[in-house]
Amino acid sequence: MRYDQYMEEVKKSNLNAQRAKKRAGIQEDITTAEKKMKLVDDTIQTLRKEADQLAKDAEKKQDFTLLSKSNAFRKKATEKQEEHKSLKKKIQQLRDKLKEMLLADFTSATILISFGAVLGKTSPLQLILMAFFEVIFSLVNEFIAVEYLGTTDIGGSMYVHTFGAYFGLSVSLLVTRQAGRESPKEGAVYHSDLFAMIGTLFLWIFWPSFNSALGDDDQRHRAVLNTYFSLAACCVTTFAISSLLSKKGKFDMVHVQNATLAGGVAVGTAANLMIQPWGAILIGVVAGVLSTFGYKVIQPFLCEKFGLHDTCGVHNLHGMPGILGGLGGIVACALASEAVYGDSLPDVFGDRFEDPPADSTAKAPIEVRDAGQQALMQLAALVMTLAIAIVSGLFTGLILRCVPGLDALSDEKVFEDEYFWEEVEAADSSHATTGYHMVQQRAPAEVEAEEGTPHTETYTKNGKQEGEAQV
Amino acid sequence: MRYDQYMEEVKKSNLNAQRAKKRAGIQEDITTAEKKMKLVDDTIQTLRKEADQLAKDAEKKQDFTLLSKSNAFRKKATEKQEEHKSLKKKIQQLRDKLKEMLLADFTSATILISFGAVLGKTSPLQLILMAFFEVIFSLVNEFIAVEYLGTTDIGGSMYVHTFGAYFGLSVSLLVTRQAGRESPKEGAVYHSDLFAMIGTLFLWIFWPSFNSALGDDDQRHRAVLNTYFSLAACCVTTFAISSLLSKKGKFDMVHVQNATLAGGVAVGTAANLMIQPWGAILIGVVAGVLSTFGYKVIQPFLCEKFGLHDTCGVHNLHGMPGILGGLGGIVACALASEAVYGDSLPDVFGDRFEDPPADSTAKAPIEVRDAGQQALMQLAALVMTLAIAIVSGLFTGLILRCVPGLDALSDEKVFEDEYFWEEVEAADSSHATTGYHMVQQRAPAEVEAEEGTPHTETYTKNGKQEGEAQV
Amino acid sequence: MRYDQYMEEVKKSNLNAQRAKKRAGIQEDITTAEKKMKLVDDTIQTLRKEADQLAKDAEKKQDFTLLSKSNAFRKKATEKQEEHKSLKKKIQQLRDKLKEMLLADFTSATILISFGAVLGKTSPLQLILMAFFEVIFSLVNEFIAVEYLGTTDIGGSMYVHTFGAYFGLSVSLLVTRQAGRESPKEGAVYHSDLFAMIGTLFLWIFWPSFNSALGDDDQRHRAVLNTYFSLAACCVTTFAISSLLSKKGKFDMVHVQNATLAGGVAVGTAANLMIQPWGAILIGVVAGVLSTFGYKVIQPFLCEKFGLHDTCGVHNLHGMPGILGGLGGIVACALASEAVYGDSLPDVFGDRFEDPPADSTAKAPIEVRDAGQQALMQLAALVMTLAIAIVSGLFTGLILRCVPGLDALSDEKVFEDEYFWEEVEAADSSHATTGYHMVQQRAPAEVEAEEGTPHTETYTKNGKQEGEAQV
Repeated sequence: MRYDQYMEEVKKSNLNAQRAKKRAGIQEDITTAEKKMKLVDDTIQTLRKEADQLAKDAEKKQDFTLLSKSNAFRKKATEKQEEHKSLKKKIQQLRDKLKEMLLADFTSATILISFGAVLGKTSPLQLILMAFFEVIFSLVNEFIAVEYLGTTDIGGSMYVHTFGAYFGLSVSLLVTRQAGRESPKEGAVYHSDLFAMIGTLFLWIFWPSFNSALGDDDQRHRAVLNTYFSLAACCVTTFAISSLLSKKGKFDMVHVQNATLAGGVAVGTAANLMIQPWGAILIGVVAGVLSTFGYKVIQPFLCEKFGLHDTCGVHNLHGMPGILGGLGGIVACALASEAVYGDSLPDVFGDRFEDPPADSTAKAPIEVRDAGQQALMQLAALVMTLAIAIVSGLFTGLILRCVPGLDALSDEKVFEDEYFWEEVEAADSSHATTGYHMVQQRAPAEVEAEEGTPHTETYTKNGKQEGEAQV
Repeated sequence: MRYDQYMEEVKKSNLNAQRAKKRAGIQEDITTAEKKMKLVDDTIQTLRKEADQLAKDAEKKQDFTLLSKSNAFRKKATEKQEEHKSLKKKIQQLRDKLKEMLLADFTSATILISFGAVLGKTSPLQLILMAFFEVIFSLVNEFIAVEYLGTTDIGGSMYVHTFGAYFGLSVSLLVTRQAGRESPKEGAVYHSDLFAMIGTLFLWIFWPSFNSALGDDDQRHRAVLNTYFSLAACCVTTFAISSLLSKKGKFDMVHVQNATLAGGVAVGTAANLMIQPWGAILIGVVAGVLSTFGYKVIQPFLCEKFGLHDTCGVHNLHGMPGILGGLGGIVACALASEAVYGDSLPDVFGDRFEDPPADSTAKAPIEVRDAGQQALMQLAALVMTLAIAIVSGLFTGLILRCVPGLDALSDEKVFEDEYFWEEVEAADSSHATTGYHMVQQRAPAEVEAEEGTPHTETYTKNGKQEGEAQV
Repeated sequence: MRYDQYMEEVKKSNLNAQRAKKRAGIQEDITTAEKKMKLVDDTIQTLRKEADQLAKDAEKKQDFTLLSKSNAFRKKATEKQEEHKSLKKKIQQLRDKLKEMLLADFTSATILISFGAVLGKTSPLQLILMAFFEVIFSLVNEFIAVEYLGTTDIGGSMYVHTFGAYFGLSVSLLVTRQAGRESPKEGAVYHSDLFAMIGTLFLWIFWPSFNSALGDDDQRHRAVLNTYFSLAACCVTTFAISSLLSKKGKFDMVHVQNATLAGGVAVGTAANLMIQPWGAILIGVVAGVLSTFGYKVIQPFLCEKFGLHDTCGVHNLHGMPGILGGLGGIVACALASEAVYGDSLPDVFGDRFEDPPADSTAKAPIEVRDAGQQALMQLAALVMTLAIAIVSGLFTGLILRCVPGLDALSDEKVFEDEYFWEEVEAADSSHATTGYHMVQQRAPAEVEAEEGTPHTETYTKNGKQEGEAQV
């Protein structure tokens, strides 16, 4: 992995740490509360039984003292009922607080995605400020989408991937200098490619748990399966398309590292819905084609035509697949009927139903929004996400560009680690750094070219430099 | 990891994706079904209680209307009983469908193992065709072994490892050209060794869950423990043997990367049986010795005498340990008595027992096959696996060799990535490729030798080439 | 990762394997036993009900035969009660045996930490002997601390990290030769740094499960959360401090690889206590500062002044944060009141409570040690751990130094893999080895300097050597 990515790691932790502070309640005992509740419930049962028994006896023996006794029991039971309710509420609160932690991770993911578009072209200070703004804007977007529009997006295709990608791209549009677009130092080499693959493996393995983290029971179960199906289908497709798009039918590591994951992004919104395996696989296939095509064709085009430079190609892995995921969610919501979901419909689409009024005899939740309306809301959320991401991204980019003292990168600092990372060798810096260029960015020949020292000289006169250059 | 392995990754996904399509049912609600069943069961209980109560009263008051009422209740309960059965059946079906997914992964593992024997000597097209045939043959073998012979092999020592290894070796015997056997490009270098170690770590960590995935409750529990014990013992043994087999008492990375995992392979069949920790450790120790000895002595011998070339040494890590696992399973099955397993015997050895006839009063399952017979069946499965693997492997190898248009590798393409992977550097291919040789296969000195350019010249005349060569 | 670490891996497995042998009981069925117990309990219930019913009838009909019958039932129930107890005991034993396995892993961790202080300066034989002694001493320490002092340390801040670090440092003090302190071969290069980061990621991801492994229910739950909070806070702090301590405000990979984990170490003792997220975060922040400062300032100071050489800086990642964890535990124990912990106090602090005497009517456990006393005990355990670790470490170091035939490293063998690992290239050893130096330790220029061959010569006369040197 590239060093920069650890700078992202720190941001991620940062966010979690900040939110963690607000989460004292978590530490209380969920299970203790549950035990208490069980006790209360048992008491209620016993009281009611006793009351019934007494009532019967009272009737039999026509004894009114017994009857009053029975009523007393019933009254106690009703009191206990209150205790039951408050405990239930408390447990729910504790559970919600745990979900907050997950949401913190989701927000971190959003930030990391955005960073992907500007890495190597921004300073740590700029990244920190960027993260600060993005946390606010992305949560505003998510809050409106969830609380007001009542939309569902368990894997964050919209709130996380789409928002992160287009926010980052908007920032990149404003902060990228010409030097960043055409730097010879950008790009991978054999080893950094292999390192990146390890990252890909981690993401592949943990993606199902990411998409299913916010679900319960069957929804989580489905989210894991659908994500797995989509990822598998996407992985196959990517290899095929990568080879098809190549002149000599070769595979491209960039596609293998990135596009193979697009299926996980694209199935995010619909992961917990009953889209059936064929649905998940279809999404994965389309995502694989879209993402690979993006890396091969769309990204270079955007960079050339609009100067939109995207270091890690987040537009191909998160942007377009994210939108695809949003669309998939719209379709899945439009098709969600009780015939398919059975009793679980209200659980899955909480916002489509309301609890029956207390006085009514009906127990089943009442439908207040049909499938079509839900689909429209999903569409609204997707459009809003794009709008907020782009506008707030441009706003943030403007700030990063104009605010002084953010240590913005001059041309020679672009895509260089040496300015932000201690050299590995304790030895004299410039050389170890030479070593860095090589492994990370380009061939030492270029280094020397830059340094204007013919190679042979370097060797005879300064073995050490080339020495480290070979590291 | 080597690039080739990602070509395997894609196959794996491929298989899963294909099977996934057939698995619509999965999406339905297991837990919902379970809730329903609980409701039904409660109803049955209540109906029966009511019926009993009514019967009593009827008797007391000699009231026949009550009696008939009671019978009505009983009848309802019997009807509900049917509903209970159908629900139970449905839940079982959903569970089975999930197991299918696991089996898909197992089959993928089989394919990946076989690939290990032919990597670097086959084209992507050949690998795809090979996977196609192996899926069929390996599943035929597994089907017969499980359905007809009623054998157990929870970790796939026989169905997965033994089959995969000998199928791959048979293919290799027919597709490997002389150039593949003596290519100077084969072999690891410092970095590829470290990458491979990361793969070893992943496998070590996830092996217990692989061996236990198909078990339930205690069986899963035992499988995890036994696999862990066997792996640990094997890991220790491998280091010791590796040092003992070396002239200067040095450790060999090839052994550390591979033989340390042999314990996981060898305990596969018996993992869920009560072999006790000492049994698991014994298996691990023998596997470690066998595997290390295989890499050091047997593999070179086979290659020299029979021209049997085994790129990743699958014979040492999967072939021999797999057979060892099969034998271990035979012994474990022969020793399986009710004295040791108690009530769980029928759960563990489902094929040794039958449900009692409906009319019989006996409730316990009836033993239809004793431990000895089970052991014999296990032996039969092991022999059959070897037979089918070798025959179908030779058949597949013949096809890969003879069918035209499969893009079979010419001598110079053997163990070269450049023909199937885009170079990392956008720069002119030959150079980036030079970079590849180096890191992956051999020293640049050889590269130059090949290219017939004395080294100093390379430097003075063409810094760039050597430059990338140093990456 | 460095090759040496796999030598540690083998030790770890070794220990587990040894202990595993003693653990036959595990294989028995926990769940089967639990099922049996459930049956027994049901029987008891039914018997009692029957008895009550009979007693009532007896009273009503004044029938003494019924009464005796009822008593017979009660007697049976009491007998069954015994069976219930024995089963419960058996299940507990099985559970304890599982915990033994975890403790084996913990001890392995202790050994691995100690190895970190002497890696590259000791021979495999010395490491094995060192492990042998440390297992004994560390378990003696843990036994006294847990059984006699009744202290708590779920994540092993004291028993594992503090002990391991100071034991290893004491050994290092006696086994490190001058050559080891000033070897030019020590230190990382770009690639080994990235490999180490992968190790850091693994540790970061699995640390919460390590700290929570020994807890149950809420305690495990809290341990996971607290560890996560502490790690996150520590990660942020480390980046900040690393940059602050650098002249040019650069980040240092050594800090990122190590100090980012210090939070996991420091929260170990208090992880399962109700320290609230702010407590966990505070611990993480302090740990990050302490650890980074240790790498930057304390470690060089100790090496210079006292010749205390610490290869992996275990003092900074495990030693000081471990002590910090011990102190954190003391505070957390001092503040542990029933007001905060509610009913769970006796579960969390088992040693502060005793079961009420059988004859007493009270059911709640009786407090025998107050929070202050517990805190004192924790302090005692911390001091004892330091004392035993240092004394036994010096003792072990003396043995490693004096006992002949342990293959102690001569000056030129220090920080060299080639003497204990087969070269990667089958080619002539010296060259491949040259390759090793490079990637692992230093620039080839140094190699040549050492070998006294001017660079150009190397090239013209012996391309191959430089060739592999470039690997």
